[in-house]
Amino acid sequence: MRLVTLRAQGGTRAARLDGDTVTELPFADVGELLRSGGDWATRAKATVGGLERRLHDVALAPVIPSPAKIICLGLNYVSHIVEMGRVLPEHPTLFAKYAVALTGPADPIPLPPESVAVDWEAELAIVIGARVRRVSPEDAGRAIAGYTVANDTSMRDWQNRTLQWLQGKSFEASTPLGPALVTPDELPGDPLAPDLEIRTEVDGEVMQLARTGDLLFGPARSIAYISTFMTLEPGDVILTGTPAGVGAGREPPVYLRPGQVVRVAIEGLGELVNRCEAERLGGSVSGLQGGASGTQP
Amino acid sequence: MRLVTLRAQGGTRAARLDGDTVTELPFADVGELLRSGGDWATRAKATVGGLERRLHDVALAPVIPSPAKIICLGLNYVSHIVEMGRVLPEHPTLFAKYAVALTGPADPIPLPPESVAVDWEAELAIVIGARVRRVSPEDAGRAIAGYTVANDTSMRDWQNRTLQWLQGKSFEASTPLGPALVTPDELPGDPLAPDLEIRTEVDGEVMQLARTGDLLFGPARSIAYISTFMTLEPGDVILTGTPAGVGAGREPPVYLRPGQVVRVAIEGLGELVNRCEAERLGGSVSGLQGGASGTQP
Repeated sequence: MRLVTLRAQGGTRAARLDGDTVTELPFADVGELLRSGGDWATRAKATVGGLERRLHDVALAPVIPSPAKIICLGLNYVSHIVEMGRVLPEHPTLFAKYAVALTGPADPIPLPPESVAVDWEAELAIVIGARVRRVSPEDAGRAIAGYTVANDTSMRDWQNRTLQWLQGKSFEASTPLGPALVTPDELPGDPLAPDLEIRTEVDGEVMQLARTGDLLFGPARSIAYISTFMTLEPGDVILTGTPAGVGAGREPPVYLRPGQVVRVAIEGLGELVNRCEAERLGGSVSGLQGGASGTQP
Repeated sequence: MRLVTLRAQGGTRAARLDGDTVTELPFADVGELLRSGGDWATRAKATVGGLERRLHDVALAPVIPSPAKIICLGLNYVSHIVEMGRVLPEHPTLFAKYAVALTGPADPIPLPPESVAVDWEAELAIVIGARVRRVSPEDAGRAIAGYTVANDTSMRDWQNRTLQWLQGKSFEASTPLGPALVTPDELPGDPLAPDLEIRTEVDGEVMQLARTGDLLFGPARSIAYISTFMTLEPGDVILTGTPAGVGAGREPPVYLRPGQVVRVAIEGLGELVNRCEAERLGGSVSGLQGGASGTQP
């Protein structure tokens, strides 16, 4: 089964994708469907009578627009680690991204005026479908609702301003996620260790090309590890790290420019196609009553 | 004005605190009140007729139980940076904590069996009350709903497993936040740069003692900086970093043991008093239908 989140008037709507037919489901987005309870898959599969449209007639939002947690792994492709001359780490490197960093699978990626080093990172994303804490790797697969594609766009100048990467990883609307949540039964091979081609192209030039079977910490190990210290819940998203071939690793480094089109594709899951656009500098201040410069509260 | 979030049957409830009288407000928690719109302060102040109780008769939840973002600063007290022989950084170090890491101001702090190095970190917390993006330091104060107290409890062994601190900072229910959101007009001096005594005591022994006026990146600069790359929204929480005196910095290091009581207090804001308890090892797996090991989806 493939599930998508549509942009709808004033919000979003979950939908099932059958071929190129999109059938709306009675949930605001795929995250809400997952949070609605353990039998979400049966419920989504059985829905009939929802509004139907063609895929090319709809606009897609991030497949999970508001995950309570986005957990990112770094340095997780074996060939990339070896190529960099590093030893295989004992523990996964984890960092966070906030939900405001997400954008849709065909949306423009804004190149903010504050960064001169916007880079791509193709990643397999795991979407959580069950609540788990301290789950074993053997049981961890049962928490996987499915997989999707992410481009963990990274502002390298901000990422490296300090030792902690967060500020280079959470620029607003920088991270395409989607197009669809694909349940594991749709994929070939072991659903807990999918071995799929993953690639990035920039204006058609292949920049990253690897297989997800090369992940050091695969889905089951990642979920087991993270659930040691906190509960994973339906709608949480885990980005599993990127293979070799990012712009920062080139000699000289290559970064994204306005007008370029970045395509991140994973075999069997679909693709993200996003045009880079120079962001118009804009700010906003709203809802200010009662703030610190007032004396009302 | 002081606002708290009460534990109520099956959930939580926002309330106003006047002296030791707690008056319930028609919002699930203080975060929901802030998200209800720009005139939240007037609305909270004007509420009469809500259920009233005494403070000692209620149980407090984290004052903001589910922030969409918890943004943490590290290395932010000037005297501590100088003491460590470092130069003052040009940019703040930022990392994240997930909402599941929060716990109430009087709740036990679980000492998980997976860590042998649980440490305290007294911090001034800023609660955001308005939506801002690319706000100047001069205007940033207007986004401050108020301040509260946090103990950014840190599992040092996990924090230092890799270069990214996240996994040592997001253990479930490890981070007391509260007791109250205190609006800036309640505080002495400059509401954008409060200079308040901040202290940690463990079983009555003073471990940290500093003033929030020693912050390198104070509230206004922190908000301006973060809002450069993403929108801050009502209910978001910024933890501003901890002064010298953590257990890991002692010779030899000192970590929390079962039965110890940690008290973190900030002048004018209140205190967190949490007993450390050895956590019973427990896991959970629920809502598993439709997961990767099934074939239903």
